[in-house]
Amino acid sequence: MPIQDTTASVITPEQLLEHWQGHRRVTRRAIEAFSDVQLRNFSLGGMRPFGEMAMEVISMAVPCLRGLVNGDWTMGTRDVPPTKSELLALWDEATEEINTLWAQVPAQKWQENVMAFGQYAGPAFQTILYVIDNEIHHRGQGFVYLRALGIEPPAFYDRS
Amino acid sequence: MPIQDTTASVITPEQLLEHWQGHRRVTRRAIEAFSDVQLRNFSLGGMRPFGEMAMEVISMAVPCLRGLVNGDWTMGTRDVPPTKSELLALWDEATEEINTLWAQVPAQKWQENVMAFGQYAGPAFQTILYVIDNEIHHRGQGFVYLRALGIEPPAFYDRS
Repeated sequence: MPIQDTTASVITPEQLLEHWQGHRRVTRRAIEAFSDVQLRNFSLGGMRPFGEMAMEVISMAVPCLRGLVNGDWTMGTRDVPPTKSELLALWDEATEEINTLWAQVPAQKWQENVMAFGQYAGPAFQTILYVIDNEIHHRGQGFVYLRALGIEPPAFYDRS
Repeated sequence: MPIQDTTASVITPEQLLEHWQGHRRVTRRAIEAFSDVQLRNFSLGGMRPFGEMAMEVISMAVPCLRGLVNGDWTMGTRDVPPTKSELLALWDEATEEINTLWAQVPAQKWQENVMAFGQYAGPAFQTILYVIDNEIHHRGQGFVYLRALGIEPPAFYDRS
């Protein structure tokens, strides 16, 4: 006998934002752990260097929220900047924009169906979870790159 | 000016369960993609073989829900069984138990503070997200192992 109220909140919008930004702080530390050259060139198994993965993550984060706020589903650029510090600057810029745009997503939006980036149909919460999960997925791959380079990755559990 | 109702639901308990089980289907396909020997022995960068990561994931999934349902926070075993088929059997057993236990978590529980596994304090939603995110993280690492072995990993986006 289910005792669930399926309209109950598992997580509020504010909590999900904080959860995401916590993950983003870990990813930022992962980017920092690479050298400029490693970020652009090192890879395993024929996969992309971590700089390209990080740019994919950036290309989806703010654009996803823009889509939810004003229906503009233009994906961001994935061109990897020449240096780590430029990539980190893009990261930090996104951090601020995420906070600003998040506050503009109406609470009821998360349960509405959207056509993300013109091609992915589903409720808005699924779109944002895809973006977050994709970051966790690629950061996990970046951790393997770091280990293979003899570099200690940041702690997965430390979201501060 | 924030237009959020912070008590609004981003995702309902049923939706989060389906989201998790979708990820678990991808992870199951990742386990399947390894051979018995690769699952037990292959690794990169001095990390654990994917079989050990998969057992860590199993050791947290059902035990986390048991903790939320009856306060029994005993972690599961992480011993890697000798064959892939035995590991997959444990995986499938967990899949059913997750569905059963999830239905017993009271809706209001997700916002309550718990002391997960006797040491991790925080709201219940954070505990379950940790378990899910940890799975995504390690599966991402398994994908690098697969690529390095010349094996195509399952599609990240296909949760069917």
